[in-house]
Amino acid sequence: MHSSASPVRKAAAELIGTAALVAVVVGSGLQAARLTEDTAVQLLANSLASAIGLGLLIALFGPVSGGQLNPVVTLSAWWLGRRDGSGPGTREALAYVAAQTVGAVAGALLAEAMFGRAEVVWSTQERIGDRLLLGEVVATAGLVLLICGLTRIGRTQLAPVAVAAYIAAAIWFTSSGSFANPAATVGRAFTDSFTGISPGSLPGFIAAQLAGGAMGLALAAVLYGKPVGRDASGSGPGQDRRVSPESADTAAVRMR
Amino acid sequence: MHSSASPVRKAAAELIGTAALVAVVVGSGLQAARLTEDTAVQLLANSLASAIGLGLLIALFGPVSGGQLNPVVTLSAWWLGRRDGSGPGTREALAYVAAQTVGAVAGALLAEAMFGRAEVVWSTQERIGDRLLLGEVVATAGLVLLICGLTRIGRTQLAPVAVAAYIAAAIWFTSSGSFANPAATVGRAFTDSFTGISPGSLPGFIAAQLAGGAMGLALAAVLYGKPVGRDASGSGPGQDRRVSPESADTAAVRMR
Amino acid sequence: MHSSASPVRKAAAELIGTAALVAVVVGSGLQAARLTEDTAVQLLANSLASAIGLGLLIALFGPVSGGQLNPVVTLSAWWLGRRDGSGPGTREALAYVAAQTVGAVAGALLAEAMFGRAEVVWSTQERIGDRLLLGEVVATAGLVLLICGLTRIGRTQLAPVAVAAYIAAAIWFTSSGSFANPAATVGRAFTDSFTGISPGSLPGFIAAQLAGGAMGLALAAVLYGKPVGRDASGSGPGQDRRVSPESADTAAVRMR
Amino acid sequence: MHSSASPVRKAAAELIGTAALVAVVVGSGLQAARLTEDTAVQLLANSLASAIGLGLLIALFGPVSGGQLNPVVTLSAWWLGRRDGSGPGTREALAYVAAQTVGAVAGALLAEAMFGRAEVVWSTQERIGDRLLLGEVVATAGLVLLICGLTRIGRTQLAPVAVAAYIAAAIWFTSSGSFANPAATVGRAFTDSFTGISPGSLPGFIAAQLAGGAMGLALAAVLYGKPVGRDASGSGPGQDRRVSPESADTAAVRMR
Repeated sequence: MHSSASPVRKAAAELIGTAALVAVVVGSGLQAARLTEDTAVQLLANSLASAIGLGLLIALFGPVSGGQLNPVVTLSAWWLGRRDGSGPGTREALAYVAAQTVGAVAGALLAEAMFGRAEVVWSTQERIGDRLLLGEVVATAGLVLLICGLTRIGRTQLAPVAVAAYIAAAIWFTSSGSFANPAATVGRAFTDSFTGISPGSLPGFIAAQLAGGAMGLALAAVLYGKPVGRDASGSGPGQDRRVSPESADTAAVRMR
Repeated sequence: MHSSASPVRKAAAELIGTAALVAVVVGSGLQAARLTEDTAVQLLANSLASAIGLGLLIALFGPVSGGQLNPVVTLSAWWLGRRDGSGPGTREALAYVAAQTVGAVAGALLAEAMFGRAEVVWSTQERIGDRLLLGEVVATAGLVLLICGLTRIGRTQLAPVAVAAYIAAAIWFTSSGSFANPAATVGRAFTDSFTGISPGSLPGFIAAQLAGGAMGLALAAVLYGKPVGRDASGSGPGQDRRVSPESADTAAVRMR
Repeated sequence: MHSSASPVRKAAAELIGTAALVAVVVGSGLQAARLTEDTAVQLLANSLASAIGLGLLIALFGPVSGGQLNPVVTLSAWWLGRRDGSGPGTREALAYVAAQTVGAVAGALLAEAMFGRAEVVWSTQERIGDRLLLGEVVATAGLVLLICGLTRIGRTQLAPVAVAAYIAAAIWFTSSGSFANPAATVGRAFTDSFTGISPGSLPGFIAAQLAGGAMGLALAAVLYGKPVGRDASGSGPGQDRRVSPESADTAAVRMR
Repeated sequence: MHSSASPVRKAAAELIGTAALVAVVVGSGLQAARLTEDTAVQLLANSLASAIGLGLLIALFGPVSGGQLNPVVTLSAWWLGRRDGSGPGTREALAYVAAQTVGAVAGALLAEAMFGRAEVVWSTQERIGDRLLLGEVVATAGLVLLICGLTRIGRTQLAPVAVAAYIAAAIWFTSSGSFANPAATVGRAFTDSFTGISPGSLPGFIAAQLAGGAMGLALAAVLYGKPVGRDASGSGPGQDRRVSPESADTAAVRMR
């Protein structure tokens, strides 16, 4: 957010980064599905590859655009920073969401081009039902709590590793496959494979993700209290530390 | 322990953290069991997801409540700190254990809600016999030795990664599945699945865990000697360094 | 590149390092193929072992020769440094490529000696078609973008871990198996096994790798802009930092 | 080596540490073998658990005894330090080897006690033939090269992670299973299971390990040159840095 890159370059980074993320998720799913019939082995490979890809992209694109690659993350940053100006403005947030969504679709099509289908098809993978939506709420709440928590305890530099590890686990412990990303969810409607989602299942999933994001923000407030001080440097008084946006941004790439 | 959070917030953190931990363990077990019939693949997925979840929770909740999430860990801290006041007091320790236990049950029910059963059932997974109890003693002794050892060598900042890695391995090298956590053990009585334990097996497992915890403390004394100096800052004389509780608490989140 | 080692020692390091890399890739493939018929499990083991081997070799050989172990990486360094003298000269680059190629063949033969065939054979594993070549372009572009990006954001010290993680994921998300290394590709023509490639498939793969490398350089320019200042210390003005070659070289081993 | 612990405590640490290491290796092998018939899945679980166990033990026992847990490592340190007194003396080295060997046998028996056999049995797992011995030479040479290399490039603090990762990979890329540890090899003669080795195969394996250790020392000399200066502080002139033993010892636990 606070990098010196131009708005166009930032949006390009979010677009390319989200494209790469979805290409990794969909591509590794296609690869796994053609190599084994054991669905758990497929998911092991898919979850490890997806987690690694996400972690590297956050590290690499963080200093350019923040490496958010996810509308829920962008909206959380917008919400948390709406008072003190530390987050993106409304227009910048919308540009990010648009770039992420376009990138996600492009990434799905790239994976399809590498692994098999020339023509564009819709996914037929239905993902409906209360249990799956609950899973998606849990997955997204956990993601937002993690990111907010790292900021509140002053450890945003761990974000690439921590978010990657979180996704690898969440794919397993939630019933929904832990999409937790509205843009990637849209992109995954363009692959009729293991990791796809039918267009009819999109509204429920995206609504669950937004609800989960709000719940994650609420949980962070319960656990860490309200951030104090609205000065951007975070040097205000009070028991809760708040990392300044600049240091958080640059720190995001100090992976370890 | 020595964070500035209020006692209520600390207990809330232990409750929420232990709930999340058990939801990860039970949820990933339910997911794995429905995806493959190969039990080793199930355990691979379950052990990796559980380890990651535990590591992230220790990192994220450490600065609030210590991120103990385990009555054996709380009791060890109480025992080691009973003289110099570095650990929790008796009342605080009991509050932690209660919060952890309630959280563990809630976490198991959340996993069941995501994956399948609406009604609450008891586990029918019997876990009895000397070999399993020996496994549980070994698992818990290793866990306590690890945590004490990291403190004694001044490396508590490695706790999230080291404890996570330990659990991933201990699930494999012990015969009992390495529960090593009385609260989580109680919680796991509420899922009739891969990772459950029947109520009748609880007393043996919990007794073995307590015995293992004591053995871990003894092993640490053999290997590292008695800590010297009872001043909280750990600056006393002698060959054995002792990290001060404050630095240990804050260090717990410097994951790498 | 800028280490004080003699040119002969540098070339020896590149030769031994690439030999070890290919021995790890081919050997772990041979091992996996004889232990299971599930191709996805084979690839899980092969990708994890290959990634670890690559990461350790970059860390260990980086301070001697730069730990490039890959002609595309050497050529990228030559291209980027041709103006300011920060990269290898043309002669040094050619010596590296030759050493890498000889080492790769030796490594494949060592793996064959450990696992099975006394006589030298050509691979019969055909790898042709547009989809695979597209996969190889993607794999190599991502690798070069990663390495350039780490330099541009001042995090070359993460190279061993990041490059290793990238390869583990790329083996899964690309359709080609992510060779992404012309020298290793030549070496893998000398094993008729899981990880081999028939001599007839070499030209296409190597061309795709070179094209991918160029695309990676272009992507890095889009995302990070042109490096400013041609002074070797990288202390020139402008928004884009550029790590000095010396610090990048020595930093390459500070794995975390 | 240069820790302030008494010789008895050091030997106890090596004994307990090697016992724990072998219990992890053998125990995880027994667990895996009873959960699946897919040998590659068995080896995946066994290699990951063994690597994690080794890494944690090096980190935890390093500050007490050096965390060598392996006669080849002890003998290498003795050889390299015989002139400048930086390594263990001959008597100390022999005490370490004895403690490691006794510990290894105890660890194997502990694993058997947890998983199955009350009585002590010999392994019937024959491991003979030139190919396996070549694999064991390669595995041990790589291990010694790695440890020496980390010292020469001043990165001994990476030893726990790097050695663990190395073993996880070497189990896959060598034909012998990468025992690479004479004490553990003796211990593994006491389990008739997946990870065992018949007594008749011991002499060949141990000879190959010693030869591999010598080859690793030779490779390190080729790549890094002779260490300069025989003063223990390593502050002598010349291009090759040499980490002082004290800093290496304490650094060994700064895992990341």
